[in-house]
Amino acid sequence: MSFTKPRELPVAVDVMGGDHAPEAIVAGALIAAEQGIPLVLVGDEAVVRPLLGKRRDIPLVHASEQVEMGDKPTETLRRKPSSSMRKTIGLVKDEKACAAVSCGNSGALVVTAHMDLKTLTGLERPAIATVLPRADGGQLVLLDAGANVDCRPEMLATFATLGSALAEALGVKTPKVGLLSIGAEDGKGNAQVRAALPLLRALPLNVVGNVEPSAALAGECDVLVCDGFMGNVLIKSAEGAVETVMQLMRQEIRRNPSARFGAFLLSGALRRFRKRVAWDAHGGGMLLGVNGVVVVGHGRANPVAVAAAIRLAWVAHDEALIGRVVRAL
Amino acid sequence: MSFTKPRELPVAVDVMGGDHAPEAIVAGALIAAEQGIPLVLVGDEAVVRPLLGKRRDIPLVHASEQVEMGDKPTETLRRKPSSSMRKTIGLVKDEKACAAVSCGNSGALVVTAHMDLKTLTGLERPAIATVLPRADGGQLVLLDAGANVDCRPEMLATFATLGSALAEALGVKTPKVGLLSIGAEDGKGNAQVRAALPLLRALPLNVVGNVEPSAALAGECDVLVCDGFMGNVLIKSAEGAVETVMQLMRQEIRRNPSARFGAFLLSGALRRFRKRVAWDAHGGGMLLGVNGVVVVGHGRANPVAVAAAIRLAWVAHDEALIGRVVRAL
Repeated sequence: MSFTKPRELPVAVDVMGGDHAPEAIVAGALIAAEQGIPLVLVGDEAVVRPLLGKRRDIPLVHASEQVEMGDKPTETLRRKPSSSMRKTIGLVKDEKACAAVSCGNSGALVVTAHMDLKTLTGLERPAIATVLPRADGGQLVLLDAGANVDCRPEMLATFATLGSALAEALGVKTPKVGLLSIGAEDGKGNAQVRAALPLLRALPLNVVGNVEPSAALAGECDVLVCDGFMGNVLIKSAEGAVETVMQLMRQEIRRNPSARFGAFLLSGALRRFRKRVAWDAHGGGMLLGVNGVVVVGHGRANPVAVAAAIRLAWVAHDEALIGRVVRAL
Repeated sequence: MSFTKPRELPVAVDVMGGDHAPEAIVAGALIAAEQGIPLVLVGDEAVVRPLLGKRRDIPLVHASEQVEMGDKPTETLRRKPSSSMRKTIGLVKDEKACAAVSCGNSGALVVTAHMDLKTLTGLERPAIATVLPRADGGQLVLLDAGANVDCRPEMLATFATLGSALAEALGVKTPKVGLLSIGAEDGKGNAQVRAALPLLRALPLNVVGNVEPSAALAGECDVLVCDGFMGNVLIKSAEGAVETVMQLMRQEIRRNPSARFGAFLLSGALRRFRKRVAWDAHGGGMLLGVNGVVVVGHGRANPVAVAAAIRLAWVAHDEALIGRVVRAL
């Protein structure tokens, strides 16, 4: 599998951000580099250079500071003006990179990208979109996944437009757009949802109405719109439930020798299955609505997840996602 | 297993409410009756009597009307004053039953119980509590699971008190109470959460702070407090994720003969495991904060789930739950 194209701008990677940075980030970058994706890494030269091994040809931009997970997002720009995160975004701003990837403090990443890249014309706030696996084998674009914890109904309407453009870029024709609610009928939901649904219906999109999370994961829509608090709750509830099921299943299997042999026979199927449902195999979220491709990787990302995040950035760039979003707006 | 005690009041069951009513409800009631739980059924005599078979000894209160799933909750009291749901609640109000169970329109059930049983002194609104299985084998009391879609922060504080009392009744000593948020640190979350956390901390409860849904399902708290919209989203996201995992696993197993044999060897473990995680095996939600025990069964309840809901009502009554809640308030 090779993604190389002539004279393409590289993907900029903040190698200092993430729970396992810089080791896991550099290791993930090396995987992506082997797949032919052009890269530029950003981080502390003294720490990062030795991790590159024989790939010392990959360009490295030095950054003396780094944003920590506990840093307040709104203060990072002022306090750490030359952080690796900000320099990564800066490479996109200066058209020296086609996309930016960071697994660091996601709040700080949203603020930095918002400030330095600016939102697309006509857009108040960017949103983080995440792709989740559906029971029918399809993909669900969920947004906002955490960039805006408090949203006005008008913001949910712009998220619908952004999400529909992303689903189209992923190959879905006239994506079905749902509004996250508890009950499918119009009028169900809280005050925010009841105010937002008419605004979504007024858009030139294929809006199917209110959709419950279980129905969305079953395949009832391609795009699910909600505020960032709700979206984050949905993702972490789904992750928690899957983890609970796996844990309880492991206990059941441990109790019983014939079940253990059964699990052994199942292991190939389980491995392929894990690849399909692994919530981190999808590379993390995409910040939609700013002038540039920005991928918000998981803080806990391991090298495989980092490589997936870089691939997502590269493909999104390639799919001219920003152009689609601009046209949709 | 027998639950009978001398001179106990029966559990009142609305046999007309639920997607599979009255057949599935009556079938579930017969299972509970065989386990020795005294019952009084409420429904259309002409329809229900023939379903009782040789258990014609179970008392039946006739109701000529029934609340439909599509009925507007706030209008049901006026439009259907003698519905089976209202008569079921009425038996608790008139001290002819120790608890009420309905798998019908849950919004209507909340409104009816609120109006006819009244809230406990000092309480503005009741909440629905649901018990979810945790990865560590424990139980998570989640509330509100859907009674109040829009909540002020003060309401979340009262839910914390209600939930802690229920967890104690379930056998947990000084239950750990968490506030649903996205990030564990104080100050994380949306405006509602940031306003509610100090109110929870001021209560004489074991409040552990903000808890993410995945952490709650892993066992970080015994009680998770949120508004009814969020709680319902959490439950349906968890259900949807588990269903997605099961569906994708079935596909993997079908593809591969040795995996099929493995699944056969695993089937005993899977069956026991399903019993532990089946979200409907827990009998549904408990309406907390009204003068009486009211169980909100699943609309889709099958006979086994109905019997579990009746058992939950019986046990909650037996545990003197209301007394605990009143003392806690």
